[in-house]
Amino acid sequence: MPIQDLLPLLAEVVGEEHVRVDEDTRLAYGVDALKRGRAADAVVTPANTAEVAGVVRLCYAHDVPFVPRGSGTGYTGGAVPLHGGVVISLERMNRIIEIDEANLLAVVEPNVITGDLQAAVESVGLFYPPDPASLKQSAIGGNVAECAGGPRAFKYGTTKQYILGLEAVLPTGEIVKTGGKVVKNVVGYDLTHLLVGSEGTLAVITKIFVRLVPKPPVQATLRASFSSIDDAVRAVAEIIKRRVVPAALEFIDGESLDAVARNLQVHSLAPEGTAAILLLEVDGTPNAVEEEAGRVSEACAAAGATEILRARDEAERQELWRVRREISLSLKMITPLKFNHDMVVPKGRIPDLIALVSRIREAYRLRIPCFGHAGDGNIHVNIMVSPDDADEIQRAHDAERVLFEGVVALEGSISGEHGIGFSKAPFLAIELSPDEIALMKRVKAAFDPKGLLNPGKIFPES
Amino acid sequence: MPIQDLLPLLAEVVGEEHVRVDEDTRLAYGVDALKRGRAADAVVTPANTAEVAGVVRLCYAHDVPFVPRGSGTGYTGGAVPLHGGVVISLERMNRIIEIDEANLLAVVEPNVITGDLQAAVESVGLFYPPDPASLKQSAIGGNVAECAGGPRAFKYGTTKQYILGLEAVLPTGEIVKTGGKVVKNVVGYDLTHLLVGSEGTLAVITKIFVRLVPKPPVQATLRASFSSIDDAVRAVAEIIKRRVVPAALEFIDGESLDAVARNLQVHSLAPEGTAAILLLEVDGTPNAVEEEAGRVSEACAAAGATEILRARDEAERQELWRVRREISLSLKMITPLKFNHDMVVPKGRIPDLIALVSRIREAYRLRIPCFGHAGDGNIHVNIMVSPDDADEIQRAHDAERVLFEGVVALEGSISGEHGIGFSKAPFLAIELSPDEIALMKRVKAAFDPKGLLNPGKIFPES
Repeated sequence: MPIQDLLPLLAEVVGEEHVRVDEDTRLAYGVDALKRGRAADAVVTPANTAEVAGVVRLCYAHDVPFVPRGSGTGYTGGAVPLHGGVVISLERMNRIIEIDEANLLAVVEPNVITGDLQAAVESVGLFYPPDPASLKQSAIGGNVAECAGGPRAFKYGTTKQYILGLEAVLPTGEIVKTGGKVVKNVVGYDLTHLLVGSEGTLAVITKIFVRLVPKPPVQATLRASFSSIDDAVRAVAEIIKRRVVPAALEFIDGESLDAVARNLQVHSLAPEGTAAILLLEVDGTPNAVEEEAGRVSEACAAAGATEILRARDEAERQELWRVRREISLSLKMITPLKFNHDMVVPKGRIPDLIALVSRIREAYRLRIPCFGHAGDGNIHVNIMVSPDDADEIQRAHDAERVLFEGVVALEGSISGEHGIGFSKAPFLAIELSPDEIALMKRVKAAFDPKGLLNPGKIFPES
Repeated sequence: MPIQDLLPLLAEVVGEEHVRVDEDTRLAYGVDALKRGRAADAVVTPANTAEVAGVVRLCYAHDVPFVPRGSGTGYTGGAVPLHGGVVISLERMNRIIEIDEANLLAVVEPNVITGDLQAAVESVGLFYPPDPASLKQSAIGGNVAECAGGPRAFKYGTTKQYILGLEAVLPTGEIVKTGGKVVKNVVGYDLTHLLVGSEGTLAVITKIFVRLVPKPPVQATLRASFSSIDDAVRAVAEIIKRRVVPAALEFIDGESLDAVARNLQVHSLAPEGTAAILLLEVDGTPNAVEEEAGRVSEACAAAGATEILRARDEAERQELWRVRREISLSLKMITPLKFNHDMVVPKGRIPDLIALVSRIREAYRLRIPCFGHAGDGNIHVNIMVSPDDADEIQRAHDAERVLFEGVVALEGSISGEHGIGFSKAPFLAIELSPDEIALMKRVKAAFDPKGLLNPGKIFPES
């Protein structure tokens, strides 16, 4: 059905003011955080699950593609209407419905901002650990759809570990509930965790049951500097050997540090000659934290750290974290175009990944700053290019494929956090076999026989 | 194809000595831990993944049902050949392939006994937390298929949280790998966690990538006795209020305690007039353990505990755990027939569950001892019946349905650990809607279009 004919039907479901077709809106809701995508044909903003189901049923009945959208902060285009159609923005469904202290859970609508959820539960002594860098902008529904990670994943796990259940609207319009308020449930298939990370291609998530844990009472934050990347990586192994699981174990290479230093206009953020730093945080009860901070320092020293700092108060802690938080923005100052890849390898193979990047850097003459979550083996590899240098862009694309193939050869994965969306879809077959892709497509068809929900994502289009 | 004709083909794949059709074998591999099921037509014992795939392809091509089997310790019949056909026993695939200390993981074949895996990783200072009661008999593959729990799930989570990836043979014979050695992977759908808990109905698991954590250096074990069940349940709330997450928080009611006391022929295992006990364990670094043990004692005292004991050494610890371990066997001494249901409710609603059981106990004149994992709201409700009392058996069956409906009304689930198998399949629709069941059946068909893998499980047969 032409979108023009669908609009009055959509208006009946959500109200006329919640169906928008002006060009600004259609463009704004058509792109991801990297401004890639295409304009939506229409943007609707339902108020509740019943309205979402009504919109979905209309689109499905009339063969119009539709795409759920949270805050639009994704890096691989999961929420963009690649084939046009209706964007279902969940922005009005942004309530924390319930924080249930006795049962250590919260029930929320999908468009609660993750940082707001964290603040709300922390105010009653509870904790929602997943902390994607975008937590002040991204919505919990998007975090669920992408299975967001963040620095705390090494100790606490990713979004997946904190989702007890979901309410969702199937592409065919039925409202289903998976899991719920219990922490154990083995009744039928675990559709909850199939939906987590499914990038908005299997159902529209309308309600989320979030598991919470007690808030760790204190933490200690340390920064260790190293004169070689090898030493920094060895420190990670030394920490693991001492059986400590830090709440954060962030790796930042010299090239990333330089970018931050230039951006913040400070001479240097670490001792002269620093090739990499680790930003470390341990949390728990006061005694346990002292014990673990000691072991972490010991491990860094054993690996040859040139300097080990420990924050003495919250201000110093924020200062240490600042360099990590400023990386993304600082890299943007170097050049507005970067191919940011969230590579992940078994953590013991980080040295191989770093060596791979070095070889690529040289062979393709590219700047490739790296940083990320060393405890998870999850390193953000940023290929920096000048938007107007066609040759460099070509070299970057060639390098991408070599990088992905190399990571898979290291028993790694081409995406640890951002998902496939449309931007990595052409590379899916590097990691998955034809049988595995065929199986996933059959699962997709079990949910969405007509393929109208979020088309063009995950699977390469022929 | 008649099974007679299939046998020589199977023998070509696995070798003649690994195809068994004698009656003893067919019967032994046809029942679950409760001796329910029916005889297999043939039992094959493949040596490796390629042989499993060969067997599966033969069965699929010739329309013969097939069922994967580990140690056969399940409670709901997940591994029994309800429709006859071939039982694929994975008993020869029982190697720990690799314990990778640097990457905190292990790679194992499905028939490694869970307790053996635990011992192996603990010997190098690592820890595999899930601890189903059957851990000395049950195989890790079965634990994965059922998503086994156990006392440590409150703090550490269930099997699900420790599975990084799987290798599996699809019903159609393809060998696929899901996930792998990385702790984060968002490439395509999370089929790993769809397979976990799928009760052997979606694929035959042939290799498992297990996540490990550092072994907690020490633990403290306490037992608190209460003169009313309400007090015991209030203690759980008091512990949560103090933001402590014990590694075990086991609840045992007076009826269960009495059974153990009679079985062990000791006068009493707790002070006179005890209506319930909590068995508590906290673990971690020495200082953290002292801190938490103190807070747990405080919480139990605040709830009116009549006695709080703390084990002073490993012998005393084992003595405290003994009563918990002896329950199942002791209940069997009362009567060989029990309907053992692994109910789960949001933990704050345990008092409502206990009240529900009391009402049922009275209305249906039944003995129903209860015990279980209070931190998870996961209570084993055991309806005891005399095998030769037809009237009592009927009352027990009537009571079951009332129990399941009541639990779902409390926002709970009819199975927290054992799965649905065939024994709970008739009750599936109490918890799941027709739309949810239809969706799960479509997922099943995406894996197994002919419905030959483990038929008769999860979904009620019409």
